[in-house]
Amino acid sequence: MHIGFIGLGHMGGAMARALLSAGHHVTAYNRTPDKAEPLREAGAALVREPAEACHGEVVITMLADDAAVEQVVARMPIDLDGTIHVSASTISPLLASRLARRHARFVSAPVLGGPEVAAEGKLFVLAGGESTWIDELAPVFSAIGQRTLVVGDRPEAANLVKLACNAILAAVIESLGETLALVTKSGLVDPGTFVDVALATVLAAPGFQAYGEHLKTYRFEPGFKLPLALNDMELALDAARVHAVPLPLVSLVRDHLLEAIATGLGHSDWTALALVAQHAAGMRTSA
Amino acid sequence: MHIGFIGLGHMGGAMARALLSAGHHVTAYNRTPDKAEPLREAGAALVREPAEACHGEVVITMLADDAAVEQVVARMPIDLDGTIHVSASTISPLLASRLARRHARFVSAPVLGGPEVAAEGKLFVLAGGESTWIDELAPVFSAIGQRTLVVGDRPEAANLVKLACNAILAAVIESLGETLALVTKSGLVDPGTFVDVALATVLAAPGFQAYGEHLKTYRFEPGFKLPLALNDMELALDAARVHAVPLPLVSLVRDHLLEAIATGLGHSDWTALALVAQHAAGMRTSA
Amino acid sequence: MHIGFIGLGHMGGAMARALLSAGHHVTAYNRTPDKAEPLREAGAALVREPAEACHGEVVITMLADDAAVEQVVARMPIDLDGTIHVSASTISPLLASRLARRHARFVSAPVLGGPEVAAEGKLFVLAGGESTWIDELAPVFSAIGQRTLVVGDRPEAANLVKLACNAILAAVIESLGETLALVTKSGLVDPGTFVDVALATVLAAPGFQAYGEHLKTYRFEPGFKLPLALNDMELALDAARVHAVPLPLVSLVRDHLLEAIATGLGHSDWTALALVAQHAAGMRTSA
Amino acid sequence: MHIGFIGLGHMGGAMARALLSAGHHVTAYNRTPDKAEPLREAGAALVREPAEACHGEVVITMLADDAAVEQVVARMPIDLDGTIHVSASTISPLLASRLARRHARFVSAPVLGGPEVAAEGKLFVLAGGESTWIDELAPVFSAIGQRTLVVGDRPEAANLVKLACNAILAAVIESLGETLALVTKSGLVDPGTFVDVALATVLAAPGFQAYGEHLKTYRFEPGFKLPLALNDMELALDAARVHAVPLPLVSLVRDHLLEAIATGLGHSDWTALALVAQHAAGMRTSA
Repeated sequence: MHIGFIGLGHMGGAMARALLSAGHHVTAYNRTPDKAEPLREAGAALVREPAEACHGEVVITMLADDAAVEQVVARMPIDLDGTIHVSASTISPLLASRLARRHARFVSAPVLGGPEVAAEGKLFVLAGGESTWIDELAPVFSAIGQRTLVVGDRPEAANLVKLACNAILAAVIESLGETLALVTKSGLVDPGTFVDVALATVLAAPGFQAYGEHLKTYRFEPGFKLPLALNDMELALDAARVHAVPLPLVSLVRDHLLEAIATGLGHSDWTALALVAQHAAGMRTSA
Repeated sequence: MHIGFIGLGHMGGAMARALLSAGHHVTAYNRTPDKAEPLREAGAALVREPAEACHGEVVITMLADDAAVEQVVARMPIDLDGTIHVSASTISPLLASRLARRHARFVSAPVLGGPEVAAEGKLFVLAGGESTWIDELAPVFSAIGQRTLVVGDRPEAANLVKLACNAILAAVIESLGETLALVTKSGLVDPGTFVDVALATVLAAPGFQAYGEHLKTYRFEPGFKLPLALNDMELALDAARVHAVPLPLVSLVRDHLLEAIATGLGHSDWTALALVAQHAAGMRTSA
Repeated sequence: MHIGFIGLGHMGGAMARALLSAGHHVTAYNRTPDKAEPLREAGAALVREPAEACHGEVVITMLADDAAVEQVVARMPIDLDGTIHVSASTISPLLASRLARRHARFVSAPVLGGPEVAAEGKLFVLAGGESTWIDELAPVFSAIGQRTLVVGDRPEAANLVKLACNAILAAVIESLGETLALVTKSGLVDPGTFVDVALATVLAAPGFQAYGEHLKTYRFEPGFKLPLALNDMELALDAARVHAVPLPLVSLVRDHLLEAIATGLGHSDWTALALVAQHAAGMRTSA
Repeated sequence: MHIGFIGLGHMGGAMARALLSAGHHVTAYNRTPDKAEPLREAGAALVREPAEACHGEVVITMLADDAAVEQVVARMPIDLDGTIHVSASTISPLLASRLARRHARFVSAPVLGGPEVAAEGKLFVLAGGESTWIDELAPVFSAIGQRTLVVGDRPEAANLVKLACNAILAAVIESLGETLALVTKSGLVDPGTFVDVALATVLAAPGFQAYGEHLKTYRFEPGFKLPLALNDMELALDAARVHAVPLPLVSLVRDHLLEAIATGLGHSDWTALALVAQHAAGMRTSA
């Protein structure tokens, strides 16, 4: 396909390269032209204005943030004349919905994965927009990603899910960081051993499927009951006090487990923490 | 092997059954004798006192909490006469170290996984104690677990790691719960779709290996830089405000990202959140 | 004095009335003219455009938020021709500094207190700007406030302090709310009695002066040592667990006390929590 | 009166001295006899066993924590023969209720204030227990305190209120610390000026009476509406991001304000944060 590509940073550059590798014709724009040179050598045509990258079947924007996207979009024609605008940037859902109103054919497709993953065409693509357009984009997405996950027909849905996914990753990192501080300062466990154990067990993921079942069905029994989970968090906090290691994330979870129990969820699996979050959001949950 | 087993609750019962299936001889005690009947039918000998379960090569205790373990241990002989006491319960590191002083041959081996996993002998066994004893216990651990992870030679190390692992799981659940509330209340995304996407992408784990590398080597460049991560958390919180959904875990992570940047880590990968936790614990980190 | 007043909501209306009571001439503008009628009856001249309120010695803007201020300011002349613009709204420091660049004579003077307090002319005025102008404004400030506190010569300083003051009040409210939940749910204490006791003791304030001394001198000994404070928070959290009452603010403080102790402040008064906040902000604190 | 006094640390020593100054006869015990010498010089009789201090009309215990109290109480006669045991220590409500079962005449009377305040006899006494005994103790309490606040007829009620009061103070300190970091790092405001302003305005307390009215009557209108409070917290967090200053307490309050709004309290005064705390505790609130 003929693809325009705007934004050749670490991520954008790697993605454009993956498109070239898959045999697509790429016309690329970057604000700093020098940084685009390697891509020319890889076979791309370079242009000096965003608008010149908008003549193919698809134009992909991959920029740092909302402000950068807004600047570039202001220099793209409003009437894209059949070209699908694919926004791969991590932007706010609000901006995505505004872009959807501006461009007749717009798909939001933020990606999960870093530059190395992008270079191998192994990203996850989170796609939001009309399914016919997403179908048309299959050759594009399969060039940059190992898998396309269609999130919904509203483009901004994909951006919201992207942010949610990064929030989950941040929680994993924070929890790894806090617990690593605890086991390291305790002197009882080699830090590398702990990281390996965590990666090989709780972060090796099969158990997450069971969490998914609870959350999708709103059935929280049987499972690992909240009072047992609370007890474990208390033990962790006790140990943390012995070693003088603050564990703020564990404190937060402890408080939410206590809230869950106080509000009548004492017989539920600990995934019922999701109900605490929903109550805090004023949502009525239908079992 | 001849194995005593004390504590036949959901977890203990399933583990004892797995030992029987593997051909071991099991002598079992449960505080409530009735609940032990099914295990007798499965081939175990039942006894009326904890002390009577202490005559084999190994005696395993699997009880609900510190208090239950203390009660049972008070009724076990101090001189176990060569029998290895394996504590599989999720107890405090403090109690584990006291048990290690009481019983000459003591191994702490808390497990990861629920009753169904235990019934299939697919638990993860976190083992702490002298390596020769852990080696002797291989037939026991291979009967109940898919893998034994040796955490260190101090028994209480295994208990600390168990608590840390559960803290990580709790963080995953909390983050899933909060983000699920957000996407559900937004009305943009089908909740089940979101759960599936999260499980298939960020929680499908390969990326965690990269986090492990950062954390084990203390090298935090290159990577996903903290200011970009902060930006994403801000976007998530903005979206959450639009939909009136509190995201306390994201707020916590946001504050820690800000702290990381304020303390000079702005060029680091977001796994450098671990350094914030270490600084809060008064640890000096050697890059 | 001849004073223009823009924004006659609950707060603005009461302030304008206090100015009239003090004998000033008030020319007032409100976006919704009907709501301004009572003020006309009280003696003010009403105008139909913000610009018409800008001909006196002072023009005061008192509006709901940044957006409202920006809209009104766009309709005020840039050249105010000697009139001092006093911004009493609670706006961002960023907007205050932009207004200071726009208007030659600009003073930021957000206020503390609600409409009833404003009606009595008993507000606290937080003033930021050039001292000569603040001096000129003394008749204005003394009409609306019981006391003027000069925060600094940068207008936006006053806005930052206003936000900080409201953050302190919010913390007081949150802590009252959490502890009230605890004592009420415990059934041990009449809720009204607890509120009265708290107001008559810890919130009756003389002790705060001692906190101020510690914070201003960076001398944190002698005092109420952090480990004792930590112990009290742990006791509060234990009691809260007994009654199943989450106390997230206490959890947060507990973690910070632990951080303070872990980072070597164990001999300090609990006001040394301020140093934890400063370390998190990357500030080097000079004892 | 004839008063036994057990525990002559900083606080206990000052309180015993205040009792002597008021003309009482004091028989004192301290675990480390040397530290009691100054009190002998001030007129007290010293004894070598806690039991010897239990022969007067009252025996007061003032010790560091639960463990210290338990050790001393074990060495006091169970049958106190008419002597009222006044526990002034900051101990857990649980221990207070156990002491009340052990000693026939028991009053819990933890105090608010430090050693200097105690030396002047200006403490606040929080009294819990039978009112006839509290009445009998008036000469004791008036010697050490400026005011006695009767919390309820259950001794442990006084201990719970003491912990709650310290939690409120901790919140004030934390909020002062965080905001001081913000204004100091901004460079806009002299730190000492900020502390003075906060002490002279928001922490000068008259406004707290209004909070008390809302909380005691469960009437949350009119007032400072939650969305306005939320807006202010957002502005504070925005400013904090500009200066890279984490404000975790403000983040927490922000999330609770958002929860309040999400659960239908958008028209309420910000003291309705108390309802968020009550909902989290599973309490049904009757307007």
